[in-house]
Amino acid sequence: MIRDDQVPAGFEMLDLGIGYARAFGPVFLWREKSIMAFRVAQNHVNPVGGCHGGAMATFADAQIVAVHGASGTADQHTPTINLAMDYLAPAPLGAWVEAEVRLIRKTRTLIFTQAIISTGGEPIARTSAIYRNNKQTGA
Amino acid sequence: MIRDDQVPAGFEMLDLGIGYARAFGPVFLWREKSIMAFRVAQNHVNPVGGCHGGAMATFADAQIVAVHGASGTADQHTPTINLAMDYLAPAPLGAWVEAEVRLIRKTRTLIFTQAIISTGGEPIARTSAIYRNNKQTGA
Amino acid sequence: MIRDDQVPAGFEMLDLGIGYARAFGPVFLWREKSIMAFRVAQNHVNPVGGCHGGAMATFADAQIVAVHGASGTADQHTPTINLAMDYLAPAPLGAWVEAEVRLIRKTRTLIFTQAIISTGGEPIARTSAIYRNNKQTGA
Amino acid sequence: MIRDDQVPAGFEMLDLGIGYARAFGPVFLWREKSIMAFRVAQNHVNPVGGCHGGAMATFADAQIVAVHGASGTADQHTPTINLAMDYLAPAPLGAWVEAEVRLIRKTRTLIFTQAIISTGGEPIARTSAIYRNNKQTGA
Repeated sequence: MIRDDQVPAGFEMLDLGIGYARAFGPVFLWREKSIMAFRVAQNHVNPVGGCHGGAMATFADAQIVAVHGASGTADQHTPTINLAMDYLAPAPLGAWVEAEVRLIRKTRTLIFTQAIISTGGEPIARTSAIYRNNKQTGA
Repeated sequence: MIRDDQVPAGFEMLDLGIGYARAFGPVFLWREKSIMAFRVAQNHVNPVGGCHGGAMATFADAQIVAVHGASGTADQHTPTINLAMDYLAPAPLGAWVEAEVRLIRKTRTLIFTQAIISTGGEPIARTSAIYRNNKQTGA
Repeated sequence: MIRDDQVPAGFEMLDLGIGYARAFGPVFLWREKSIMAFRVAQNHVNPVGGCHGGAMATFADAQIVAVHGASGTADQHTPTINLAMDYLAPAPLGAWVEAEVRLIRKTRTLIFTQAIISTGGEPIARTSAIYRNNKQTGA
Repeated sequence: MIRDDQVPAGFEMLDLGIGYARAFGPVFLWREKSIMAFRVAQNHVNPVGGCHGGAMATFADAQIVAVHGASGTADQHTPTINLAMDYLAPAPLGAWVEAEVRLIRKTRTLIFTQAIISTGGEPIARTSAIYRNNKQTGA
């Protein structure tokens, strides 16, 4: 597990825009591998010192970015329709958390994605999501 | 819709402890009715100016509090196993958001809850959750 | 719990069409109350003698019928996009199983429903579903 | 897509026991690869001639078998707690349907699995499930 402050090679920092995403803090993307990541910081913890379930869900809600290009701008907004989380194990403070995101299917109106979220190679959560595919309204 | 800064009668402010829940900001509970609430503030918004899906999931992750007593302390921690969100409509900045939480079943090891999340009487999300019932380990 | 072969007053038998729904056997609807029901029969059981999870999911997949009119015909087909099941307790052979279905929201393209499934007043499952709203393509 | 009546090499037929699973019809397992399969038959179809969502859910409910050994007998019963289905595309009559099942995590009390369900290499559904791990009570 990477526990110091380094960001592994291959990752770039995403600009997740304003408001809630910005308050969450830096999220990173290894674009070629569709791997998103963040490091569990003090502002993410729950009362027992691990990553809060809501923080993990916030991270997971961004999974579309890993497979669909940037969505931090208003004109590329892909609203979430369904977000499902299974929490498998705690993520301790300082842990480097990665989500290997997979685009399952894109229809005219919907985008289906899923990810295994892990730290140090151990799965700590899994997630699936359905987003509205706004490109349909383009023409 | 209540859009000013007042908190409707009946609601008390919850102490959601440290870290991520504290950064989220005030969450309120009408204990007798099992209704949780918060007001969408600047720190909750997404790039298109509504409540971020991760913020709504963070609010939803706290639904156990409305039906199971305070869980802001370490000894009452009920880890989330599954959290499911369906997003039905946007919640604008300033909206007073209520979740009518229902305890569906408590087994020896698990607690099942669900909620309709609404603003101004309009459903904007629905959620269900499964928590680990830590009381089982008491003896 | 109603365990004999009677169908309670208020319920009518649905025509669920051909194939898998027909093989499932009779499903009943109390239209005014949006309550669907069936009786657990020999063809529904699992190896330990309760209702099979797949049978319960098949029953749940029909929840749209309780709130959206008959969908047993091809021109009214509302394809399921998402179906979520939480199994709370076993349903024994002979049990009369009711699902109190609630239409949560209908958008231009999607229909969101959910139900508590119970027997003898005890919840045994909960379910939510997202369907494609085919009426949008009508004009 | 394999559309004749042959079962591809590597697959063995499962004995899924009595009742609902038996009525579903033959399910096959390529044990080394954790791939489950069945062929869409007349008894699986919906009113528009594709595989019924309930049939797909019944198939998916058996995913534990692909990664946890036989569960067709009462003493190995692993009750389903949560079953989630996303339907991506229709599966036509005659299609050979495969589920590549992955064991995500086994805790003392729970087993988490998921699968992509496809036909002819095209994903048609995805599923995740949580089962009760009954082995914990064995000793």
